[in-house]
Amino acid sequence: MTHLPDSSPGGGPLPGVHDLGYARLDTDRLERTGDAEVVYGAGKTPEQVVELLKTLHETHPGNAVLATRLSEEAQAAVTAALPDAVVDPVGRTATLGSAPVLRGTVAVVAAGTSDAPVAAEAATTVGVFGANVDFITDVGVAGLHRIMSVRERLAAVDCLIVVAGMEGALPSVVGGLVGVPLVAVPTSVGYGASFGGVAALLAMLNSCAPGVTVVNIDNGFGAGVFAARVARRAAPAEVKSQ
Amino acid sequence: MTHLPDSSPGGGPLPGVHDLGYARLDTDRLERTGDAEVVYGAGKTPEQVVELLKTLHETHPGNAVLATRLSEEAQAAVTAALPDAVVDPVGRTATLGSAPVLRGTVAVVAAGTSDAPVAAEAATTVGVFGANVDFITDVGVAGLHRIMSVRERLAAVDCLIVVAGMEGALPSVVGGLVGVPLVAVPTSVGYGASFGGVAALLAMLNSCAPGVTVVNIDNGFGAGVFAARVARRAAPAEVKSQ
Amino acid sequence: MTHLPDSSPGGGPLPGVHDLGYARLDTDRLERTGDAEVVYGAGKTPEQVVELLKTLHETHPGNAVLATRLSEEAQAAVTAALPDAVVDPVGRTATLGSAPVLRGTVAVVAAGTSDAPVAAEAATTVGVFGANVDFITDVGVAGLHRIMSVRERLAAVDCLIVVAGMEGALPSVVGGLVGVPLVAVPTSVGYGASFGGVAALLAMLNSCAPGVTVVNIDNGFGAGVFAARVARRAAPAEVKSQ
Amino acid sequence: MTHLPDSSPGGGPLPGVHDLGYARLDTDRLERTGDAEVVYGAGKTPEQVVELLKTLHETHPGNAVLATRLSEEAQAAVTAALPDAVVDPVGRTATLGSAPVLRGTVAVVAAGTSDAPVAAEAATTVGVFGANVDFITDVGVAGLHRIMSVRERLAAVDCLIVVAGMEGALPSVVGGLVGVPLVAVPTSVGYGASFGGVAALLAMLNSCAPGVTVVNIDNGFGAGVFAARVARRAAPAEVKSQ
Amino acid sequence: MTHLPDSSPGGGPLPGVHDLGYARLDTDRLERTGDAEVVYGAGKTPEQVVELLKTLHETHPGNAVLATRLSEEAQAAVTAALPDAVVDPVGRTATLGSAPVLRGTVAVVAAGTSDAPVAAEAATTVGVFGANVDFITDVGVAGLHRIMSVRERLAAVDCLIVVAGMEGALPSVVGGLVGVPLVAVPTSVGYGASFGGVAALLAMLNSCAPGVTVVNIDNGFGAGVFAARVARRAAPAEVKSQ
Amino acid sequence: MTHLPDSSPGGGPLPGVHDLGYARLDTDRLERTGDAEVVYGAGKTPEQVVELLKTLHETHPGNAVLATRLSEEAQAAVTAALPDAVVDPVGRTATLGSAPVLRGTVAVVAAGTSDAPVAAEAATTVGVFGANVDFITDVGVAGLHRIMSVRERLAAVDCLIVVAGMEGALPSVVGGLVGVPLVAVPTSVGYGASFGGVAALLAMLNSCAPGVTVVNIDNGFGAGVFAARVARRAAPAEVKSQ
Amino acid sequence: MTHLPDSSPGGGPLPGVHDLGYARLDTDRLERTGDAEVVYGAGKTPEQVVELLKTLHETHPGNAVLATRLSEEAQAAVTAALPDAVVDPVGRTATLGSAPVLRGTVAVVAAGTSDAPVAAEAATTVGVFGANVDFITDVGVAGLHRIMSVRERLAAVDCLIVVAGMEGALPSVVGGLVGVPLVAVPTSVGYGASFGGVAALLAMLNSCAPGVTVVNIDNGFGAGVFAARVARRAAPAEVKSQ
Amino acid sequence: MTHLPDSSPGGGPLPGVHDLGYARLDTDRLERTGDAEVVYGAGKTPEQVVELLKTLHETHPGNAVLATRLSEEAQAAVTAALPDAVVDPVGRTATLGSAPVLRGTVAVVAAGTSDAPVAAEAATTVGVFGANVDFITDVGVAGLHRIMSVRERLAAVDCLIVVAGMEGALPSVVGGLVGVPLVAVPTSVGYGASFGGVAALLAMLNSCAPGVTVVNIDNGFGAGVFAARVARRAAPAEVKSQ
Repeated sequence: MTHLPDSSPGGGPLPGVHDLGYARLDTDRLERTGDAEVVYGAGKTPEQVVELLKTLHETHPGNAVLATRLSEEAQAAVTAALPDAVVDPVGRTATLGSAPVLRGTVAVVAAGTSDAPVAAEAATTVGVFGANVDFITDVGVAGLHRIMSVRERLAAVDCLIVVAGMEGALPSVVGGLVGVPLVAVPTSVGYGASFGGVAALLAMLNSCAPGVTVVNIDNGFGAGVFAARVARRAAPAEVKSQ
Repeated sequence: MTHLPDSSPGGGPLPGVHDLGYARLDTDRLERTGDAEVVYGAGKTPEQVVELLKTLHETHPGNAVLATRLSEEAQAAVTAALPDAVVDPVGRTATLGSAPVLRGTVAVVAAGTSDAPVAAEAATTVGVFGANVDFITDVGVAGLHRIMSVRERLAAVDCLIVVAGMEGALPSVVGGLVGVPLVAVPTSVGYGASFGGVAALLAMLNSCAPGVTVVNIDNGFGAGVFAARVARRAAPAEVKSQ
Repeated sequence: MTHLPDSSPGGGPLPGVHDLGYARLDTDRLERTGDAEVVYGAGKTPEQVVELLKTLHETHPGNAVLATRLSEEAQAAVTAALPDAVVDPVGRTATLGSAPVLRGTVAVVAAGTSDAPVAAEAATTVGVFGANVDFITDVGVAGLHRIMSVRERLAAVDCLIVVAGMEGALPSVVGGLVGVPLVAVPTSVGYGASFGGVAALLAMLNSCAPGVTVVNIDNGFGAGVFAARVARRAAPAEVKSQ
Repeated sequence: MTHLPDSSPGGGPLPGVHDLGYARLDTDRLERTGDAEVVYGAGKTPEQVVELLKTLHETHPGNAVLATRLSEEAQAAVTAALPDAVVDPVGRTATLGSAPVLRGTVAVVAAGTSDAPVAAEAATTVGVFGANVDFITDVGVAGLHRIMSVRERLAAVDCLIVVAGMEGALPSVVGGLVGVPLVAVPTSVGYGASFGGVAALLAMLNSCAPGVTVVNIDNGFGAGVFAARVARRAAPAEVKSQ
Repeated sequence: MTHLPDSSPGGGPLPGVHDLGYARLDTDRLERTGDAEVVYGAGKTPEQVVELLKTLHETHPGNAVLATRLSEEAQAAVTAALPDAVVDPVGRTATLGSAPVLRGTVAVVAAGTSDAPVAAEAATTVGVFGANVDFITDVGVAGLHRIMSVRERLAAVDCLIVVAGMEGALPSVVGGLVGVPLVAVPTSVGYGASFGGVAALLAMLNSCAPGVTVVNIDNGFGAGVFAARVARRAAPAEVKSQ
Repeated sequence: MTHLPDSSPGGGPLPGVHDLGYARLDTDRLERTGDAEVVYGAGKTPEQVVELLKTLHETHPGNAVLATRLSEEAQAAVTAALPDAVVDPVGRTATLGSAPVLRGTVAVVAAGTSDAPVAAEAATTVGVFGANVDFITDVGVAGLHRIMSVRERLAAVDCLIVVAGMEGALPSVVGGLVGVPLVAVPTSVGYGASFGGVAALLAMLNSCAPGVTVVNIDNGFGAGVFAARVARRAAPAEVKSQ
Repeated sequence: MTHLPDSSPGGGPLPGVHDLGYARLDTDRLERTGDAEVVYGAGKTPEQVVELLKTLHETHPGNAVLATRLSEEAQAAVTAALPDAVVDPVGRTATLGSAPVLRGTVAVVAAGTSDAPVAAEAATTVGVFGANVDFITDVGVAGLHRIMSVRERLAAVDCLIVVAGMEGALPSVVGGLVGVPLVAVPTSVGYGASFGGVAALLAMLNSCAPGVTVVNIDNGFGAGVFAARVARRAAPAEVKSQ
Repeated sequence: MTHLPDSSPGGGPLPGVHDLGYARLDTDRLERTGDAEVVYGAGKTPEQVVELLKTLHETHPGNAVLATRLSEEAQAAVTAALPDAVVDPVGRTATLGSAPVLRGTVAVVAAGTSDAPVAAEAATTVGVFGANVDFITDVGVAGLHRIMSVRERLAAVDCLIVVAGMEGALPSVVGGLVGVPLVAVPTSVGYGASFGGVAALLAMLNSCAPGVTVVNIDNGFGAGVFAARVARRAAPAEVKSQ
């Protein structure tokens, strides 16, 4: 008899689950939702990240697989153990394999250079989830000519991801320029009464431009998944390359 | 010379603006973003609502035009003055005319009967903005068999709007069942520590299901605009005149 | 003996104070700060508003005097009792007399028609406190061409008051267009996660445009006092009698 | 004379108190409430934890005694000094001795692997406080088949502890499946607008499933005490072993 | 085809659902969780409350059925239409029928007379859900002799519900006196920095007495359901027909 | 047997309690703490207020008894039924009888005329609880000469109550002028980001002047009880009259 | 010409100020308020703390002088440089000299051992500011017999300081036992929804016991100053020693 | 083909932009707003700070250029690489070159020595942006004689910057003394319920003195830009030196 928790969850192994002891990969998710599971790196050791990424890749050899929120140590471990992996130190992601086809295009728009990590995570996610990316940065509202000069590019894509910290005004401005579906991502960039991104989050939720939706603070990954799904549906037939 | 505010905004009339004195209609918006302006009824008199709706209709005779957040008085005034208008007392909306073509389908899913007004506003907006609606209600998470039984309908649409108050758990459950883009709408239904919808809003922003985006509390209109745009793009092959 | 409060504050009357029983007018403030005291109408009866405004006018016959936050009843009482008063039902203010001279100009810029009451209070205050007003409204960020078309007017004034609710993005946009000192006024316009103006307040405090300062939610009066003082100093060469 | 605090609390020693200088053990609590005192390890040195655990064990030789929130140093010190102690590095607990009898069963259900530490603390506490544990993990709402597949196990126990971070939806889902008393434990797992567990806490307080109660964020210990008391009462006569 | 919401949820009627148009009664819940559905009166018309209560009673003739949060109008309507109903104006509830058997006892303890409505709702719910009630009120912590004098009654029951507003200290005091499972209910009684019950809620979540769980502010119903379930399990030997 | 709450609290009547059915007067409190119980009028009918005040007066004929937070209806009822009562419409209090002796003096200092109701409640409470009052009002920090001119009066008393809304700065200024114990009372006067008195409350809690303590928003009664106790102790031997 | 800040504040030295370059000691405060200035150690170097304490001591040789919030380094520096100083590592204070006379007594009551640092700071401050201390600790509400057993000591003092974290219930309990003026000090002890002491702060502000005032979280110093002032006034004639 | 973000923002280089790879300097801002861009040092490497400052200086040889929020490492790197730079370790700024002319004067007023870093940042910014500075510190409201003694200096300037933490009362006091435009800067100095500067921020937003505007917590830079613009306009013709 013991009252201490053992590692046996139910009884036998669950179907569609790959049990690594410290984690269970949902190998069935690709079939259920059309997208494979992703390695969320926060709180995991470099060794675990490598093994999880490798396992996901072996399970889905025809798809791109993704790891996010990687520490510098985890990035180095992936680079050493998986030479084919593409590691992005800005967005703190690693990818292995490539999407079988890219359909539709998502523009990832960032207000300032400080928003780059979140924007990069979003852009990499869009690619892994099967859509092309048009990356536009440093177009904050304090210099309107910058965003106005790319209006045509904004209007040409299938979905917009707009990343901003501080007062979070960029989505409202972009949402007034074009009628493309727009996902706003508040970032924790700022200080004092920005409250770690709350100011930007509230601004985006209250946008006066219709058709703006919002994800959690710094959640570039979530915005990327959503936008890629929208873009893929908007271009179901074609195969194009950026 | 006087220091008191006069009603002259700049100098001459702005192009693409219809000035009614108490409001200026942005008659140019349809061309700029693909969607006409909408009458936000809160804080307006019944007479103003009627005149604005009528003016919008005359400006865009080939489109549906919409008024939201109408008081009971405003609904009655619209019914009396504009016999062709369709007034929905649940969603507190009025529409005049119809969309030239409906492309794609949005499922509007509501957790409980108390969420009906927000869900109805969302559904009406989707129709005005040019997409079909599949309306599913009373499928809250406290009785999972209800949402499980409509899984096929959820998977078949182009975009999902999921409306819930209280703990706001429904979007996470739906987002785990299907891979369709999902817009979550928190409602102010609840009491005590629901804080007028904040509990549901936070839950939705923190959804463990990837691909969930969120709009402001009770903002069925915003969700409807966004989802209709996604759905229209997902079905580009149908005939359109817009 | 009684322990109940009596109305005698210290002992004899304070110098520079006009005691009306229910209120004490600081008749010395004009000399101390250059501006007369103002009647804050909230919580006062119509009769009190009339008497206070009349007394202020008699004390400062060469200046404009102001009452703010007037109920409809108080506005009617002022109109009836003080035929020379100018009552503004939008801004809920009443003025009596006029400023001896107007120096400099303040542009009062409002994002939407719902922000009109706060903008009107600000504009009236500017005039009473001795500066000219250029009133610009309905130039929200969801239609950028509107604010861009008045850039020259914005650049020509001595101080800017920018009024906005919802996401409060307009001050950041205006602050990036011109280098004029800018006072931002958040309004309580909005719903849900606008939290009665908190979203706009936070956005303005976190503006990425340098040189933006902020006042309390709906505080058009405070912005007007500040901006008039700035404008008066910026135009010292005109004739003044103050 | 001295104004500095001395260590004498009242006068003579309090009955039922074991004074160690840096702490006073309430040795009377077992008799008063049916459960012995527990060592809360946060802020205590490894030496203090060892001495307190040893003293508790000597005072209550026929019961299990527990230390929680142990640092790695304290865990190592307990292992070295008390070979009979069972140390759980995941839940950060140490136990010494065993409960004289286990009555009833508590299911400890965790949404994700990140919730494991809190779930482990809860499970260990349940055992120390005299009930059996059925441990079920990795059954978050984003993959409903996981929680549905264990419905029978959930219905069979005397009390449920459901642990979840992020949007905290799992208790609502479980509460709708079975009528067993349910204690929800929000965890601080998440980022951005999870606000260190507040999002999950609010969701659980607003659960649409009746019969859900909540404890503080990360408070696996409190949930364990409560649930064990419920389970023990539900099976007063039998003696069973898991 | 129409985009406006119709009332048809899925297709055919759901099993175990009684559809009244404006609401769907989950007639299957009794079998699934052991407890029948309840009429939540907030936002419903008196006529709807009467019909729902009547329908529930007809569906479950051998059980007690309950309606909560009834307006004065709804209470009067129930009294007029359903002479057998027991209406409690303090707790704003109505019950029809009676529980087939009462097992175990719950003590409902209220700090002050202002907490009576929430305590009454809890007590009525306990009875409807099948347990006996011991009602103890006006035993706030500012006069400790009151709670101390009923210690034996507190120790004798199977579950405790402790209701308090303001600083919410009573659950900590009671939780230190006895080892009975304790559900704390914060009430919105208070003013200023009580923030509508938040002060009491936080105090209860942070109780230094182990074994205290908490429900939402003013949620006497939820506490009653939970406590009745605990009490029923604690007295399994009595005869039951459920 | 019934599960509905009955009015019997424990068994027999509690000693030192006068049970009126809808409330129980703690007639023993005077002996225990030196001060009689008080009628808190919020939520009570005018008839209840009259009866409670009358009963308290009969129980403590040699003391002053107090009712607070009285509606206009309750004030009128007290005036009609109890001719000897002193009703203060500003502070919304009623007193009956008088304190046997007044010892020490409390200065009640209010920043503005809007703070008068809270200041009056505090002043009346001080008198009922046995100390003299020096009432000083309209000395807000925007005109420092006002508070400076009464510095001697502030220094002469035994305890200070300083009442202020808006930014709540007056206690810091007064606390720097004199070394008298100071109780600060934030009021809910203000708008926007005053958040119903929270701004003033936080300012007072963070006062840079040492020796400032704070009570709840608008809690003039609590400040009065505390200050009277301090003043009475500071002048234990003398009998004086204001 | 330079626009950079120089260190000259006004012109000549201010009277009653001892300028050390990095700080200015208000050497006049003793005369103005009856208490000398204090060294707030946070953010100061060990050398600065030593010099400031030494200077204060030289300025006020007949009084005790105090330094608070000292780092371990600062405590060591004081011990090394000022052998006569009394350093308290628990309360993180240092004192030099002694109060000329101690008048009255303050009881410092702490709920748990974790509250010791704040209680010690309060107790030391009381002594420095001229009153005797009765120190009572580990009397939290979860074991009521502890606080009940010292009721006589609580009733015998001139002022109470009650220190508690977590749910902050102790001041309400103590305030109901005796009529002595009571200053409550919330501490940051706790986790999760204690929000760094906010839960305790709110509980204390909402205490149902009249005559409770509150200071900032962890502000033992402020409570000590206030309570000493109260105690000194309550015993103006005598000279006693603890 | 790659879906990863590349560094090409739009297509060709934007006019008025100097692209350094990791940042793009807005070299056009001086012409557009009258003030050059500034290097915000937070999150930048020392090397980047040096290069950015050097590039700004070369672009605007006739102006002063500024870097703010510099780490100690960045300060050292600037000192080593740019001997002509003036580095201020208190305000954590570096300046290179000097303003061509200083017009008007800004008084920077700080409540306490802990507010010095924010005040220094503000003062340096004022100079870089072309106005003279009168620096006044250590004039907190707890010793009013200090601020009263500099009233003439306060009245003589063109704009006031008032910096304060804790309760943030100084701007209200200063705003009542003179009629000069006043920008208040809350600082994060404080602990407990100061919430990192929120208490001071709220106090300043609610100031009872008219004509007070506020910037973000610790935002000395923003206040400096604003105040310099006001001061320059107030003295357009003259050239003066402090």
